[in-house]
Amino acid sequence: MTDRYFEDYVPGVIYDCGSIEVSEAELLEFARRYDPQDFHVDAAAAADGPFGGLIASGWHTASLMMRLYAEHYLSTVSSLGSPGVDELRWPRPVRPGAVLRLRATVTEARRSRSKPDRGLVRTRVEFVDGGDDVVFSASVLNLMRVRPAGPDRAPAG
Amino acid sequence: MTDRYFEDYVPGVIYDCGSIEVSEAELLEFARRYDPQDFHVDAAAAADGPFGGLIASGWHTASLMMRLYAEHYLSTVSSLGSPGVDELRWPRPVRPGAVLRLRATVTEARRSRSKPDRGLVRTRVEFVDGGDDVVFSASVLNLMRVRPAGPDRAPAG
Repeated sequence: MTDRYFEDYVPGVIYDCGSIEVSEAELLEFARRYDPQDFHVDAAAAADGPFGGLIASGWHTASLMMRLYAEHYLSTVSSLGSPGVDELRWPRPVRPGAVLRLRATVTEARRSRSKPDRGLVRTRVEFVDGGDDVVFSASVLNLMRVRPAGPDRAPAG
Repeated sequence: MTDRYFEDYVPGVIYDCGSIEVSEAELLEFARRYDPQDFHVDAAAAADGPFGGLIASGWHTASLMMRLYAEHYLSTVSSLGSPGVDELRWPRPVRPGAVLRLRATVTEARRSRSKPDRGLVRTRVEFVDGGDDVVFSASVLNLMRVRPAGPDRAPAG
């Protein structure tokens, strides 16, 4: 994604950002390092726990979302990082072997007044499992550069 | 943390959940896997980028927060997972070598009406760097079991 700028993120447009599988090995590796609760790291204890088996750390699900978001939605030429995320939700557990597909919908695009070389884009992301249930959703903020003025884009005259 | 239940999360109480260092090796490893933007994975490109150097993926910072939150705040006997997080913010970049300290403040605790064996706790988390600047904050929801009734806790009579 090398030619997408602020102006190209148009509210209402929906992007399919592809899918990714959650392997049990990676689920365990992530959780041992960052979220070592029994229902994320110990299959036997998890079977007797609140989810009846292992589930992915919610931060792992968020990180897998980010992978697809960085590769298929953000642009290497215009992404300036994110100030934050609102209304992050994990409505259903993610189990080993799940294949998740990312849908990203532009919900707002506002040019900065103080820094006119950029704008703020708000995107609703939804991570959907094989049964078409949403397992993760959030409203993500991103700062994006506007398209630079260039000779071939200058007004005629 | 093996004896903390819903009743023990009292609004207004602040917990110091310890600190953790963000090594450059781990910063790069995380970002290569989950957030491969130049300013997270390529030191040379990052030096010329919007942050003037490498910074941690925001999801890496969130995951490091979770590590301390799981170890020093949640309880293995009562944690039932999280429905979500609100107002997640990354107000300042996290650079390699940063040492971050986690502060967790209980802001709300509400017993469930439909499932009286549990309650919802809301916690404001703040990850603070060596200069006492907040680099990450969020409002985290958690479901927690209430303390089980037991012989030694039954009312006298």
